[in-house]
Amino acid sequence: MHAVSSLDSSALDEAASGATAEAPVRDLRRVPIHPDNWYPLAWSREVKRGKTHGVHFAGEPIVLARTESGKVFALEDRCAHRQVPLHQGVVDGESIRCGYHGWTYDCSGKCIDVPYLGRERLPNGVRSYPCQEVEGLIFVFPGDPALAETKPLPPLASVSDKAYKTRRFGRAVKCHYSFMHENLMDMNHQFLHRRQMGQMRARSLGRRRGEGWVEVDYTFARMEGKQPVGEALVFGQNRNGGGQNDKDVMTIRTEYPYQTLQIRTSDQTLVMNLWIIYVPLDAEQRTNRTFGLLSIRKPGIPGALDLAWPLLVWFTERIFKEDREIVEAEQAAHDSQGEDWNHEVFPVINELRNLLRESGAAHLTPRGEAHTPKDATWQPLRRISRT
Amino acid sequence: MHAVSSLDSSALDEAASGATAEAPVRDLRRVPIHPDNWYPLAWSREVKRGKTHGVHFAGEPIVLARTESGKVFALEDRCAHRQVPLHQGVVDGESIRCGYHGWTYDCSGKCIDVPYLGRERLPNGVRSYPCQEVEGLIFVFPGDPALAETKPLPPLASVSDKAYKTRRFGRAVKCHYSFMHENLMDMNHQFLHRRQMGQMRARSLGRRRGEGWVEVDYTFARMEGKQPVGEALVFGQNRNGGGQNDKDVMTIRTEYPYQTLQIRTSDQTLVMNLWIIYVPLDAEQRTNRTFGLLSIRKPGIPGALDLAWPLLVWFTERIFKEDREIVEAEQAAHDSQGEDWNHEVFPVINELRNLLRESGAAHLTPRGEAHTPKDATWQPLRRISRT
Amino acid sequence: MHAVSSLDSSALDEAASGATAEAPVRDLRRVPIHPDNWYPLAWSREVKRGKTHGVHFAGEPIVLARTESGKVFALEDRCAHRQVPLHQGVVDGESIRCGYHGWTYDCSGKCIDVPYLGRERLPNGVRSYPCQEVEGLIFVFPGDPALAETKPLPPLASVSDKAYKTRRFGRAVKCHYSFMHENLMDMNHQFLHRRQMGQMRARSLGRRRGEGWVEVDYTFARMEGKQPVGEALVFGQNRNGGGQNDKDVMTIRTEYPYQTLQIRTSDQTLVMNLWIIYVPLDAEQRTNRTFGLLSIRKPGIPGALDLAWPLLVWFTERIFKEDREIVEAEQAAHDSQGEDWNHEVFPVINELRNLLRESGAAHLTPRGEAHTPKDATWQPLRRISRT
Repeated sequence: MHAVSSLDSSALDEAASGATAEAPVRDLRRVPIHPDNWYPLAWSREVKRGKTHGVHFAGEPIVLARTESGKVFALEDRCAHRQVPLHQGVVDGESIRCGYHGWTYDCSGKCIDVPYLGRERLPNGVRSYPCQEVEGLIFVFPGDPALAETKPLPPLASVSDKAYKTRRFGRAVKCHYSFMHENLMDMNHQFLHRRQMGQMRARSLGRRRGEGWVEVDYTFARMEGKQPVGEALVFGQNRNGGGQNDKDVMTIRTEYPYQTLQIRTSDQTLVMNLWIIYVPLDAEQRTNRTFGLLSIRKPGIPGALDLAWPLLVWFTERIFKEDREIVEAEQAAHDSQGEDWNHEVFPVINELRNLLRESGAAHLTPRGEAHTPKDATWQPLRRISRT
Repeated sequence: MHAVSSLDSSALDEAASGATAEAPVRDLRRVPIHPDNWYPLAWSREVKRGKTHGVHFAGEPIVLARTESGKVFALEDRCAHRQVPLHQGVVDGESIRCGYHGWTYDCSGKCIDVPYLGRERLPNGVRSYPCQEVEGLIFVFPGDPALAETKPLPPLASVSDKAYKTRRFGRAVKCHYSFMHENLMDMNHQFLHRRQMGQMRARSLGRRRGEGWVEVDYTFARMEGKQPVGEALVFGQNRNGGGQNDKDVMTIRTEYPYQTLQIRTSDQTLVMNLWIIYVPLDAEQRTNRTFGLLSIRKPGIPGALDLAWPLLVWFTERIFKEDREIVEAEQAAHDSQGEDWNHEVFPVINELRNLLRESGAAHLTPRGEAHTPKDATWQPLRRISRT
Repeated sequence: MHAVSSLDSSALDEAASGATAEAPVRDLRRVPIHPDNWYPLAWSREVKRGKTHGVHFAGEPIVLARTESGKVFALEDRCAHRQVPLHQGVVDGESIRCGYHGWTYDCSGKCIDVPYLGRERLPNGVRSYPCQEVEGLIFVFPGDPALAETKPLPPLASVSDKAYKTRRFGRAVKCHYSFMHENLMDMNHQFLHRRQMGQMRARSLGRRRGEGWVEVDYTFARMEGKQPVGEALVFGQNRNGGGQNDKDVMTIRTEYPYQTLQIRTSDQTLVMNLWIIYVPLDAEQRTNRTFGLLSIRKPGIPGALDLAWPLLVWFTERIFKEDREIVEAEQAAHDSQGEDWNHEVFPVINELRNLLRESGAAHLTPRGEAHTPKDATWQPLRRISRT
């Protein structure tokens, strides 16, 4: 892990001079997310036993089905026959049956029954996606399936550690995923949350960059007022009175395509651990669905965190709502202007922008050019019908 | 009437092999309906005496007006002056007056008064359409008016036969008219109505094709469960116990641009007779308004059908709702894919698709290039103003 | 003031012959309003002390801010940093602070603070607009600021004359501003208001045209029925019984880009004085916000007009609603037809149409090509970031 470490103080001034001579670059807001990763497309509870659930990844309709035995599989969400969504159909044992004429597909997407045709002459099927269910999330690999096994799942906050309590949250946000990464990583946006958190000042200690990731450390100082209770729960309590927790260090990291935010006290205890991902829903990638896991370390008194939990939920929802409104305003401005007029002065964010630009897909996947398992004896049907 | 008859059993297998070598063909979902036919644009009850009623045919705005004497006429729905819809105006005796500056048109579209101009210098008028009112429907001929008299109206189910009771139904459906024809003609879609009708299996007996039409016969067998009451009313009761009505024959016919569905018992009694048409509303022909006449033969006991009527209405509405939702899903899939990925395995439907493709208009009618009566001494005004 | 006066009687007949041989001209509905004028963008009461207010002029987002001292200024409504609207920010003393990262701008648009950057290295700012507040309206000069001082504000009805009571009214109307001018100037549209005003006939006495303006005089005669009370209040009472007020003269004038309507009695008393303007909101100029000032001369009896005021409000709202619906229908027809099929037979309106065509801007202002004060030492930031 070769990392570049640097103190930001001079870099900030450098950027402020406006001397960032950028060559013409791709508009970051038009860079598609790279499909060769595992993306959560639903919470486990959304896909009930014996039911289908239709989702989207970057405009691709995908049906998730949980069979009678409880297994989840993922197929492209259209019948090979007349293209109606399979999620309007029914789960039948371990397979899925289109609701229109009853064409039936197994978990690999192969067509195994057309009620009015002989079994020896069945048409081809539909595309399937690698799929796994972990910690209440259903992950799908929308890219080249041959790569799925080579890409491990990321650590999911501290969700499996009993010392932590984890909140699952998220919703659709009407903006390109890149705005979300920039929002979280630039802690100078504390001004946005002034009503929730009072006047805080972030100070960046330094940034590091490696292959596929960038991260930055911050400390915080309260400018005036006292710490709100909600904030104390989330970011760690101000243990020894005013201004004493500026020894806590917050580290925000984008490890493509995921993002984490961790707070450690001066004795290196991890008190907060957030894992978050922004999954594009539409083909233009102008809307993302955010999935977040926020792990909070339990304090010494048993049950105290459970008691405070509703307040924490309320506080984080308020913060998330403010973030959502401002990134949607950024997207609306981009849509109206037709190009990226962003003028960034904070080197950390320019580094992040470069990472997102370089890590994204080359172009939007042409429709119907989806990958097919090489060892499959059948082919997605529409290939044939369209040539 | 030269018809081609064939048994379908081998054809089904043949189609399933995927060997239908089609040359590149027009996307059926972009084939405009042919305007040189009579289309119902409203129910009679929608056009009240002394009132106007604005409708659309394939994007063309048309005003229907019922005069003081009760006659209905049809004009293009825009004033020659400032293009505001004439349906916002008022019926004045046997003419229609624009609501803005009071320009007045007779039933032929001729301008007969501009309140602030001398009568000797009146401007030209607007286009009129051949129009006739039959059996509670107002039919308009949107194509070349010279052809209107050469094209007879179709038989309208058994609406004028006292031995039948007829239900009028319909509504706007958000899809191209071709999906509607295919939906009705392919009785293998019984799976869609499994909740309403139980498990039925259709068996096609044979298809026939002639000049401008295609038709197919079916019998039905119940796979399990018993016949629902609603179905008995619509499709004929299962007279001698389970499985005995598989001698009834259902014939579905598209005689361009209309469609019919008839059920005959083994003694050739016509027990059900449906006439239906799907009129495109918008210029892209992505929405149609369905007008249906469903005639049911009255049973021996007088009044029995009247008593059962509400159940029949409920049953047919449920069926129609399921059909509507699935064809709208087909249209949405086509819109999203941008082309027709349909992979049809049933020869009847491929025959129907060819018929619809060949019978449609060559291209969308350019706006303003509407036909004008050749014997008219006046010309639609906008021709002049735009050259 | 060189004016051309002519009687209209022969001109009307001439126009009716359809012999207006026009060369191919720009579609009036695509002619942008000229930005080098003062336009009201808000009522004073909409911009509260210490608050921001976001508005649009022809697609340009503009933020109005009223400072602590009560002064109003106008900036482009986007932060130079990440383009979020400044109206989502906060007024801070005499400046405005972006709600996201707290970048701060003074009334000239200069960036005066970025909380996390040194003051000596501040980035550039945003565009400001000349702005003045007069008689409850906030006027902005969206064009070349160097011309702002050379263009005087127009007289605003009789708003400052104690002999008159003035009603402020207006709302968004979904049409190009030109339809509004034509609607008001063509008094032959009395037919539209037949339910409010009975059968009135307008007679045009003559028209005049000069540099940047056109005007027309009318008298009115009641065809049948009696004068409604609301009309008597607005247009002057029918003082000596039926038909006697046809000596009153109504003069309608478009003095680009404003419009006025004045009624004078035979003794030259100005009994009604309307000033009105239609400000395009969107870039396509398909919606305008109307601002109107309607001054009514107080009658001899003190307080009589106050008493009758609610009736006058109700009456004018009814009239305005009818006008709004019909001009929106005109715009919808234009949108659907894609071009201007207007066939005008009234010379006054053709003259007006020429004036609007000639006075409009050459083309839609390319985005971001806004004018910058020449004496400013700073430049709008995005210029730099995009080159």
